[in-house]
Amino acid sequence: MTTLTRETLARLDATDPLRGFRDEFELRDGLLYLDGNSLGALPRATAARLEETVRDEWGSGLIDSWLNAGWKDAPMRIGDKIAPLIGAAEGEVVAADSTSVNIFKALGAALQINGGRRVVLSERGNFPTDLYMIQGLRVLRPDVEARLVAPEDLLDHIDTSVAVLLLTQVHYKTGRIRDLAEVTRHAHEQGVLVVWDLSHSTGSIEVDLNGAGADFAAGCGYKFLNGGPGAPAYLFVAHRHQPRAQPVLAGWFGHRDPFGFDDVYAPAADVRRYLCGTPPVLGLVGLECGVDMFARVNMAEVRKKSMQLGRAFVRLMREHCHDLGFELASPEDDAQRGGHVSYRHEHGYAIMQALKARSLIGDFRDPDIMRFGMTPLYLRYQDIYDAVAIIREVMVSRAWDRPEYRVRAAVT
Amino acid sequence: MTTLTRETLARLDATDPLRGFRDEFELRDGLLYLDGNSLGALPRATAARLEETVRDEWGSGLIDSWLNAGWKDAPMRIGDKIAPLIGAAEGEVVAADSTSVNIFKALGAALQINGGRRVVLSERGNFPTDLYMIQGLRVLRPDVEARLVAPEDLLDHIDTSVAVLLLTQVHYKTGRIRDLAEVTRHAHEQGVLVVWDLSHSTGSIEVDLNGAGADFAAGCGYKFLNGGPGAPAYLFVAHRHQPRAQPVLAGWFGHRDPFGFDDVYAPAADVRRYLCGTPPVLGLVGLECGVDMFARVNMAEVRKKSMQLGRAFVRLMREHCHDLGFELASPEDDAQRGGHVSYRHEHGYAIMQALKARSLIGDFRDPDIMRFGMTPLYLRYQDIYDAVAIIREVMVSRAWDRPEYRVRAAVT
Repeated sequence: MTTLTRETLARLDATDPLRGFRDEFELRDGLLYLDGNSLGALPRATAARLEETVRDEWGSGLIDSWLNAGWKDAPMRIGDKIAPLIGAAEGEVVAADSTSVNIFKALGAALQINGGRRVVLSERGNFPTDLYMIQGLRVLRPDVEARLVAPEDLLDHIDTSVAVLLLTQVHYKTGRIRDLAEVTRHAHEQGVLVVWDLSHSTGSIEVDLNGAGADFAAGCGYKFLNGGPGAPAYLFVAHRHQPRAQPVLAGWFGHRDPFGFDDVYAPAADVRRYLCGTPPVLGLVGLECGVDMFARVNMAEVRKKSMQLGRAFVRLMREHCHDLGFELASPEDDAQRGGHVSYRHEHGYAIMQALKARSLIGDFRDPDIMRFGMTPLYLRYQDIYDAVAIIREVMVSRAWDRPEYRVRAAVT
Repeated sequence: MTTLTRETLARLDATDPLRGFRDEFELRDGLLYLDGNSLGALPRATAARLEETVRDEWGSGLIDSWLNAGWKDAPMRIGDKIAPLIGAAEGEVVAADSTSVNIFKALGAALQINGGRRVVLSERGNFPTDLYMIQGLRVLRPDVEARLVAPEDLLDHIDTSVAVLLLTQVHYKTGRIRDLAEVTRHAHEQGVLVVWDLSHSTGSIEVDLNGAGADFAAGCGYKFLNGGPGAPAYLFVAHRHQPRAQPVLAGWFGHRDPFGFDDVYAPAADVRRYLCGTPPVLGLVGLECGVDMFARVNMAEVRKKSMQLGRAFVRLMREHCHDLGFELASPEDDAQRGGHVSYRHEHGYAIMQALKARSLIGDFRDPDIMRFGMTPLYLRYQDIYDAVAIIREVMVSRAWDRPEYRVRAAVT
């Protein structure tokens, strides 16, 4: 097997059908940003659009912009733009609140629909906020059981005692992909509803919720969707389930007539009932800019390039860093791996600090996981080569072995 | 009694200690914006600060801005800036989520602290989302009773069966002020906890939560605080209550070690446990700009001018519009009236459309309430004169009586 050269990768860049998108992002020369799985880069269009929102819509339009600038309907409009990225239909997705809050809404609904059961099943090591939201729900519903099992045993625990399975499709540490269709099918056979966390999926891999007959899903707007720091999240509720549950977070924007100011909550007939408070306009505008770019993107090409970027990274790490203490924590099989590649290293934290000092940005997750995000819209194939060259240089020179790189600071 | 002239009001403007603040807002000449109680005007500093956030902090700083640009601590930092406006101490307020969601958190906590009781008391005609959040909570806790009583009977219903009283200090329709200290004292005598909705209070009237021994409060960032459309809300939890309840919305940002990624939720020891998902950075930055202005404002002067503006409005309406079908819906006593003045009129909706066409912006609330917001930071006394002159002109000319002004559209 020949080694993978920078020239080979540069040739892939030259014919990359997505190569034009990089110029639509603000990324300074020389920066290798492999952390779009945590915070997506800034689309150039976003700054101008936000300024228009602030100066024209808020500053000049003031209160009337709720109607005239489309603020009021932004949660549904943006939801409908996210829908094709996740295999949802029009009217099945809203952009609102945080992923955490949306998971709470979905769990609250699923527990009503499956009212005869009281177990919420998930896997240990799932993204913490998902597990925490179950634990918070139990404060109000102590009869609900949170059943956390080992990931490898998960399917065996899907049985008729379970009301809801809460699962993340692409694991935040390893990037491992769960088979959404297969798990959903298996769950439905046991009468179990599924709430999917798509935070690391949407905008990275192809998702087909309705093809799988999915029930509920929620996910994050600030990762692969490039919606901005702390962007609003989204919530998918299959059409068939929408009228079947009363919202547990029954805010005025979910009322069928929010401006009727009735004392009695009457949920909207459609997915709007899953809105709660007043929509966060600035965050939604940022999210919409990120999502709008995907209307011009072929997700099959995104996924193909994402896999190729990851494969190149794994191969180059094996060729150049095989004896330096890294252990691949992600599936080697492209089909099993989502939009980031993770390695374990006992000095991972310090190494990541040294990489950052050299303009290679990834992130670190306790206790020893180094994550490198593969974002096809703004990463070049040759960036992968340069990244691995920097990793090798940092390791060979022991540049990471400095006291200041061991001082831990939390990073989202 | 002499009539109130425009010259008299202009003299008040000339000596107004707050007159310098108007220039800090983007407001076009000729606009009479009397709707800051619904959406506050745009501070000039906000657009530049948001652009800096987007281009520099997000665009260049990327993931490291969570620490380096202070994003991670923004909810507590901004909460601490709101605290002095509501008589709270450092470490008692967070800026997060929507008012609706924060009310849910507070109700969930109060029901634990008062675990032996199951009644949530509120008044009919309270802002709908407050009432709706109780109704949503009941989906998970059907044993909880939502007891809605007539406003005038409220105090009589505060008894030892009640766990929590949920009440708005300044009524969204009438502007009537509830005596926060007196109601809290009366509630505590019966062992009742109180959740105050301060949405129409903060930045408009002086609030002294700790002086009243208050328990919980939540409120809106986009009204008198000028935080921007759909700005994050805030939540106050008295220090003594903070460790006494498990959060019902137990998100990762409320964990005592969010980046430890433990499967088990362990709440932060302090008010951070009332955070849930990832903080909405763009919205928080907008809110912070609005709140920062209040650090240079004397709230006693704000309140004094607010009362004077309202008093002038009521007086001028009586002098110029007494025979035109308006009925004052707000208390005439300044001390009983918050930051807006409301009138009932059978043609209120159409009249408000005609006023808007003449650059006088107020708003309308079903079925017949016209609201006019008194915002001392950017309204001049003489604006009040001009506003009433326009109202009279619209009424005398019957300019409101046009078919297109009867077409109803919802406005937040």
